[in-house]
Amino acid sequence: MDSNDVIELAGGVDERLARQIEFLVEIDKLKNVERMSKISDGSRRENTAEHSWHLAMCALVLADRAGPEVDVGRAILMCLVHDIVEVDAGDTYIYAADRSHKHDAEVAAAERLFGLLPDELGARLRDLWDEYETHDTPTGAFAYAVDRLQPMLLNAVTGGVTWTENGIRQSQVREKNQPIEAASADLWMLASGIIDTAVDEGVLAPD
Amino acid sequence: MDSNDVIELAGGVDERLARQIEFLVEIDKLKNVERMSKISDGSRRENTAEHSWHLAMCALVLADRAGPEVDVGRAILMCLVHDIVEVDAGDTYIYAADRSHKHDAEVAAAERLFGLLPDELGARLRDLWDEYETHDTPTGAFAYAVDRLQPMLLNAVTGGVTWTENGIRQSQVREKNQPIEAASADLWMLASGIIDTAVDEGVLAPD
Repeated sequence: MDSNDVIELAGGVDERLARQIEFLVEIDKLKNVERMSKISDGSRRENTAEHSWHLAMCALVLADRAGPEVDVGRAILMCLVHDIVEVDAGDTYIYAADRSHKHDAEVAAAERLFGLLPDELGARLRDLWDEYETHDTPTGAFAYAVDRLQPMLLNAVTGGVTWTENGIRQSQVREKNQPIEAASADLWMLASGIIDTAVDEGVLAPD
Repeated sequence: MDSNDVIELAGGVDERLARQIEFLVEIDKLKNVERMSKISDGSRRENTAEHSWHLAMCALVLADRAGPEVDVGRAILMCLVHDIVEVDAGDTYIYAADRSHKHDAEVAAAERLFGLLPDELGARLRDLWDEYETHDTPTGAFAYAVDRLQPMLLNAVTGGVTWTENGIRQSQVREKNQPIEAASADLWMLASGIIDTAVDEGVLAPD
């Protein structure tokens, strides 16, 4: 038995289920997409599937740091789907010099992947992804901010290894993580403390 | 900088944030808990963090298969927290001969891990875990059913490798996965089809 057999079996129940199962098998590939972040014991890099779980847990646990206009349940769904496009587009390091192809590749991936689903379900997941990408609503801004904070936490508990590996400067980290400030003063205070400490310890290059 | 430094920085914002961050760093260990299931390309076993993400996505995508009394948003939260106890208790294979210590170890783990959080937040996550464990509500039963289906899907797309490795019989799979039937006739029809095909192909031992 392989993927095609399972999708065919689901089709024996109904064609809609076949499409749902095909999508669920396809996104399993996210478990093989490697990110820059290292997991908390520093033993290996994080993959996008486990990152998405950790991010959803961050949104759930840090819900009290979101403004009252944030729909935390919806932010959690955004965390779950925000990186599904990486099945096709791969992960792009936030401090990569060339991120120019990222957006087009991810939009094409969103078309294909969410297009595997029954139309209205695919549109619903695509809406979540779009709102995360533009992060111009309070809920999208909160999900986006948590997605900035989670890699900082992992970096901080592993001695800033991905910053030193890549020769990252303080100004880069401040700029890229600025969206945290708009979403939560508390989380920005924590993020600023992490940056200040990393500069003091010589882990982040001062500018 | 290490975990203690980051928790101390969070404490500089407020003590509540320190406890939230400590919990979020602690549960990162789920990324190193290995399960029996192999990921869809068969290259390695799945870890509990990425499993939890995949499960939450299954609940989201298969929401239309749940009865009208199911709160799918809450089922998704259950999927996110259902295996956090494995940070301490590890994963126990569903067909393991001796599962007698599983429950006590997991309850002790729930006490410690959810106890890291501020009281009312820890109680909220503990409630989610308890409802998943007892699965005696429609929402708990749906989350539990999806947690039975997801490993069957992975097994099916990898040729039933964890069944053949462990000499699993048809009757064991039918018995352990029976909870799917109560939650969704459609998903049980798919699960039954997977079992029948696996028996036909000699992957599952008939009884």
